[in-house]
Amino acid sequence: MPLTKTNGTITPSPHLPFGDQQTAPWYGKDILSVSQFSRSDLTYIFEVAHEMREMVARIGAFDLLKGKILANLFYEPSTRTSSSFTAAMERLGGSVIPINEVRYSSVSKGESLPDTVRTLECYADVIVLRHPEVGASALAAKYARKPIINAGDGIGEHPTQALLDLFTIFEELGTVDGLTVTMLGDLKYGRTVHSLARLLSLYDVKINYVAPPIVAMPREIIAEIDRKGIPQAEFTTLDRPLPETDVLYVTRIQKERFSDPDEYESVKGSYVITPATLQAAKQDMIVMHPLPRVGEISMDVDDDPRAAYFRQMEYGLFVRMALLAMVLGKA
Amino acid sequence: MPLTKTNGTITPSPHLPFGDQQTAPWYGKDILSVSQFSRSDLTYIFEVAHEMREMVARIGAFDLLKGKILANLFYEPSTRTSSSFTAAMERLGGSVIPINEVRYSSVSKGESLPDTVRTLECYADVIVLRHPEVGASALAAKYARKPIINAGDGIGEHPTQALLDLFTIFEELGTVDGLTVTMLGDLKYGRTVHSLARLLSLYDVKINYVAPPIVAMPREIIAEIDRKGIPQAEFTTLDRPLPETDVLYVTRIQKERFSDPDEYESVKGSYVITPATLQAAKQDMIVMHPLPRVGEISMDVDDDPRAAYFRQMEYGLFVRMALLAMVLGKA
Amino acid sequence: MPLTKTNGTITPSPHLPFGDQQTAPWYGKDILSVSQFSRSDLTYIFEVAHEMREMVARIGAFDLLKGKILANLFYEPSTRTSSSFTAAMERLGGSVIPINEVRYSSVSKGESLPDTVRTLECYADVIVLRHPEVGASALAAKYARKPIINAGDGIGEHPTQALLDLFTIFEELGTVDGLTVTMLGDLKYGRTVHSLARLLSLYDVKINYVAPPIVAMPREIIAEIDRKGIPQAEFTTLDRPLPETDVLYVTRIQKERFSDPDEYESVKGSYVITPATLQAAKQDMIVMHPLPRVGEISMDVDDDPRAAYFRQMEYGLFVRMALLAMVLGKA
Repeated sequence: MPLTKTNGTITPSPHLPFGDQQTAPWYGKDILSVSQFSRSDLTYIFEVAHEMREMVARIGAFDLLKGKILANLFYEPSTRTSSSFTAAMERLGGSVIPINEVRYSSVSKGESLPDTVRTLECYADVIVLRHPEVGASALAAKYARKPIINAGDGIGEHPTQALLDLFTIFEELGTVDGLTVTMLGDLKYGRTVHSLARLLSLYDVKINYVAPPIVAMPREIIAEIDRKGIPQAEFTTLDRPLPETDVLYVTRIQKERFSDPDEYESVKGSYVITPATLQAAKQDMIVMHPLPRVGEISMDVDDDPRAAYFRQMEYGLFVRMALLAMVLGKA
Repeated sequence: MPLTKTNGTITPSPHLPFGDQQTAPWYGKDILSVSQFSRSDLTYIFEVAHEMREMVARIGAFDLLKGKILANLFYEPSTRTSSSFTAAMERLGGSVIPINEVRYSSVSKGESLPDTVRTLECYADVIVLRHPEVGASALAAKYARKPIINAGDGIGEHPTQALLDLFTIFEELGTVDGLTVTMLGDLKYGRTVHSLARLLSLYDVKINYVAPPIVAMPREIIAEIDRKGIPQAEFTTLDRPLPETDVLYVTRIQKERFSDPDEYESVKGSYVITPATLQAAKQDMIVMHPLPRVGEISMDVDDDPRAAYFRQMEYGLFVRMALLAMVLGKA
Repeated sequence: MPLTKTNGTITPSPHLPFGDQQTAPWYGKDILSVSQFSRSDLTYIFEVAHEMREMVARIGAFDLLKGKILANLFYEPSTRTSSSFTAAMERLGGSVIPINEVRYSSVSKGESLPDTVRTLECYADVIVLRHPEVGASALAAKYARKPIINAGDGIGEHPTQALLDLFTIFEELGTVDGLTVTMLGDLKYGRTVHSLARLLSLYDVKINYVAPPIVAMPREIIAEIDRKGIPQAEFTTLDRPLPETDVLYVTRIQKERFSDPDEYESVKGSYVITPATLQAAKQDMIVMHPLPRVGEISMDVDDDPRAAYFRQMEYGLFVRMALLAMVLGKA
């Protein structure tokens, strides 16, 4: 038995999965925040995602990540995001370790996130992490040798959602420059619209915000976008900005955000999209929504070709395929 | 970046997964109810399932569905059915997105079943759905572009169970025509026996029902079967129909069905199968059970070659492999 | 339709998966207890595990178990063990049926473990079982035709943990003979240290036990090891045995084991490993821990090359890959 003393890690280099193209530009990197992306980064990600789209349309799946393993570590449930990453890995020929039971597991026995991540990277090549606490992904990435992809950490970041939102606009409308994007609904608590606004500020866009004052876009984000020279405008109803809108991004207004239930009842109807709403909209605009929806877009809108929210889910698959391939050195 | 405006779904045709034989007869179809099958449909399904059986016996697994993804969407737990579909997909080289946590997920946040299904079909090629409400599968199929396979919707249908029951009879006894099938136990609430009786009525069979009156086979089902010209007979004990029985289908009688606990205690012993029971049975009959059992068949019966209930599970695997291959255009 | 009467199990031989090398020495065997292994068995297992390590380091994954299915049946949660077996199967090209929801499933409806196992073996080629009750794995193995691997049954056995512990020593230090192994912490309730001590007694070692008297190594185990002629010594603090120690195996002391909280507080500090502790240790010793840890090894130790506990997780992957390949006739 040729056992030799090694006394060292088997894959000691930081972020060095087995047998990959270490020259690939995103090889071994973490995906933690939208703030890490330059405009040219986004161009590259979307090129790869577009290739993924074409490959899926043509052959469904392929073996680019065959033999690779994704640890899908969800400290809080998210069927949609979890399923999307699972499908992305499987369509690339890779495998998944699903870890959805964290609340019952050793983690809840008091194990720290760094220890959990360092254990899982012994088994997997990349870790997707969903966690209720802000900064969890950065903490995990600090300790992990393998790439961490942030799938949402509390009210913090959810970068792959923002990327898929932007990719949807690119694929649907062919460009981002020159567009008017109108965000509607709860703009205060939704990390989705915050991240998207930040990514959009890398382009030549105009952004409209439509919300009840109680859930308006936070001042600091408006200030941040303003420093990039992006024109922004605020409204409490959709009628004025709608005709110029190229992308209408709808989010849900949660009743619990209002201290006065009557106030909620008085405004909620103004933020529901129906076929009547869309009569005043451009013929080639698109309606987006991060889903799940609970009434803020009428099901009667679903058959309108401008309703892009289910296609948006499909674009999410392609973006996550691209990111997995990139950080594993295969794109 | 060759981004072009598409503004349309990527796979717009109804039920049109990637790159499949669109001429295959079951391609893209839903499996919702036993009532959708003609006798020639059953013949075809069982031919494919028999091929699956021979392939598994010879080589274990093969790559017929490589690159295909099954979303295994279970709104209520069912280890047996869920595992069977997972194994069926994996033995055909495909992958699975397991979704067992629905009660904690976006669905429980109020998302509608149509929205959940339209999201999952963005990731997967086929959806298996288990749901507590009658009609859930038909609702899902109405909205989905990809095939839906009903894995049980409340007290409604569980068509793959009925198909595997009938396939078991075919494989074990070589035919269905000419057989006497005796159903025993709770015949009122068991969707399993209702569906099986309906499928059997497509053949030249005789059906016996053995049950306490309080859980007898419903009148409307007996009437329905009668209109097909199938001879039926009812009993409260097994002793008279047993000697002529070719297939004894046992189900569990739940204590909770009886308003008077004494009544339950007085009858339950008559519905337990033991080696002594089988002394009066034919040597080439078979004993079936949908499982799980809790005492209604003694473990002492398990070694009797007539005990077919574990083989029944294996036939279930082959039937589900057949259905997945068929609706994905590969059979 | 060439349906023929078979009336028999499809794979009737005990432990006879599809198309395997039935001459492989471990083919079809169960892995239930450390007591089943001779020293030459361990040599063989570790040779295979070492090959797995080299293969993973070189190519990450390979298709040795392609087409094979593992049913990962966990009656109690264990993210670490479950993920390790999942990764082991996936790195060998096989598939996994994850069954973590047992408490909600048919099992909790009253199905017996033998019935559950006999159902799952209709779908899978090998079953990994975690169960809260002592003896569950042996019971499962008695009824199953396919191999059972015990992944922990209550306070009983957890043989793959003991194997990975011993394999870690082999790989890190090149040998076991001649070493001094010091076990620290809760030695009374930890099945890990009991199993490891038993395996070590097959080699020429010295074992030290360091524990508060209330959680000392049980007398019967010390007597059992003594009958093998292994020198053993007991201590309540680490300072005396540490300098001669080659392997320091740390376990957690749970507060709940102490009837007097003050007693716990008075001793717990003596059982925490810090960089200061290791100043008195050999330069080529290793620190092991089964994980999760909750404070008993300071995170400041993690960067010390002697800290082997995360590498230990990786060795666990290789041991489980070896066992799966062996019992499936592929090693």
